[in-house]
Amino acid sequence: MIAKTPEPPYYAVIFTSVLNEVHEGYDEMADEMVKLAETQPGFLGIESARSGLGISVSYWTDEVSIKNWKEQSRHQLAQKYGRENWYKSFMTRVAKVERDYGFGNT
Amino acid sequence: MIAKTPEPPYYAVIFTSVLNEVHEGYDEMADEMVKLAETQPGFLGIESARSGLGISVSYWTDEVSIKNWKEQSRHQLAQKYGRENWYKSFMTRVAKVERDYGFGNT
Repeated sequence: MIAKTPEPPYYAVIFTSVLNEVHEGYDEMADEMVKLAETQPGFLGIESARSGLGISVSYWTDEVSIKNWKEQSRHQLAQKYGRENWYKSFMTRVAKVERDYGFGNT
Repeated sequence: MIAKTPEPPYYAVIFTSVLNEVHEGYDEMADEMVKLAETQPGFLGIESARSGLGISVSYWTDEVSIKNWKEQSRHQLAQKYGRENWYKSFMTRVAKVERDYGFGNT
């Protein structure tokens, strides 16, 4: 469940969100987007958790891959639905991972 | 619940973890560490969620602040307990946030 990422540097997209109380169709689209992201060039892994606040961190080899994913047509539709129907608020942060360290079977 | 961070650049520490089935004392220490982090120089905010996988992202002005927080004495004790008792696995990633954008009351 912890993403297996290569040696830094690589990129992280930290997506933090609060859903509206009614968010019909969100779970299905979220599952679809994870499956689609996994097929994109430069994708390294994704970690997600939600307990009130949702945090999803996807990892990418470089910024061009992130830009291409943001502009992918089906993903564009998901983003539009998200803004119009599902998210009360969100924040996306694009960050360059400079170092990492772990413990256990990560 | 979404952290109010300043204009980039700033730093994110992405901490992803899986707890052992028994993790007595963890919740109390986690709460204490959030309160303590909030008092540290350079701290900007924190976002946390857990659903199986736990993701906690803390935001900092610079790398020196992150290093000082890692070395804070009570936090050192919490890290030791974590490795020895609470975490099955974890990964820490230190990343420089280069850009961000949001929506709603973030």
